[in-house]
Amino acid sequence: MSPVTQSLTLEEFLKLPETKPASEFIHGAAIQKPMPQGEHSLLQVELCEAINQVAKPRKFARAFPDLRCTFGGELIVPDISVFRWDRIPIQPSGRVANRFDVHPDWAIEILSPDQRQMKVLSNLLHCSGHGTELGWLIDLKEESILVIFPGQRVQLLRGTTPLPVLNGMALELVVEQIFNWLTL
Amino acid sequence: MSPVTQSLTLEEFLKLPETKPASEFIHGAAIQKPMPQGEHSLLQVELCEAINQVAKPRKFARAFPDLRCTFGGELIVPDISVFRWDRIPIQPSGRVANRFDVHPDWAIEILSPDQRQMKVLSNLLHCSGHGTELGWLIDLKEESILVIFPGQRVQLLRGTTPLPVLNGMALELVVEQIFNWLTL
Repeated sequence: MSPVTQSLTLEEFLKLPETKPASEFIHGAAIQKPMPQGEHSLLQVELCEAINQVAKPRKFARAFPDLRCTFGGELIVPDISVFRWDRIPIQPSGRVANRFDVHPDWAIEILSPDQRQMKVLSNLLHCSGHGTELGWLIDLKEESILVIFPGQRVQLLRGTTPLPVLNGMALELVVEQIFNWLTL
Repeated sequence: MSPVTQSLTLEEFLKLPETKPASEFIHGAAIQKPMPQGEHSLLQVELCEAINQVAKPRKFARAFPDLRCTFGGELIVPDISVFRWDRIPIQPSGRVANRFDVHPDWAIEILSPDQRQMKVLSNLLHCSGHGTELGWLIDLKEESILVIFPGQRVQLLRGTTPLPVLNGMALELVVEQIFNWLTL
């Protein structure tokens, strides 16, 4: 289970040194994410690549792994945060910002073994409640993906069901394809 | 984790001897529920009592613990199944039926430690997709309740938030009240 420290404010939390794996700030407590394992790590990078491959050349969106996103009084670190191009925070120099104080447009979480699944779902519902268009909760064990649509509507998808992506994104994936990536 | 037997049909599964704890038939596999522990057991009976206390005298509804419900090609055994009075299957003699081949109107699941939380959520979404008006997923560890509304819309409730019940049911509960029942 995730180690929990004492109750503190978001501002206090932001002053703490960063941890590895990242810590999130949820409901007044710092909670460290579990150390990613092989399947988790592979899926995270494969999915980032698949998204960026179609979304980057067209300047449509970008996928960021393990990015700290602060909004709605919480700081969460989705396994993958996808931002539409015009919503990526940038510095006056044109470089990408270091602090993302905005919600992602699409948040993806990959369940680790022994991770509190309801806590991860809670993070995705926090996103959905603050404007995130789409959430994916990937369950490696059940080979299913819980999709969170606007209005906190959810759907559990399996097998050859096509997966919803950001509106306008030219990416076609079915559920079992995602889990096939795990076989080298 | 739940023991899984080989793939079989629902009709084959129904011919197997019953197990204790109950087994469910989900996606072509028999999966046994975990052995309930103290908190789970206490909450199950308290909640049944609270519901029946208001719903039985008015012949509005009844709460059944660990009832086998077969519909949509699966057999699930929610921790609590609530049926509106006129939907309770009865025998010609007027007695309650032994086989419930209908969806409950309200399904409640209480997460056990180490239980596959997404599997339990999947059962509640199966109910919702087949006409169940309301689902509750009670997380003892996080002291939160995930509520499933029609259209598979979900909401995570905590603290002093009032809990939705069946339309027309005269039962008023807030989230923390449920968890306070655990303190004798």
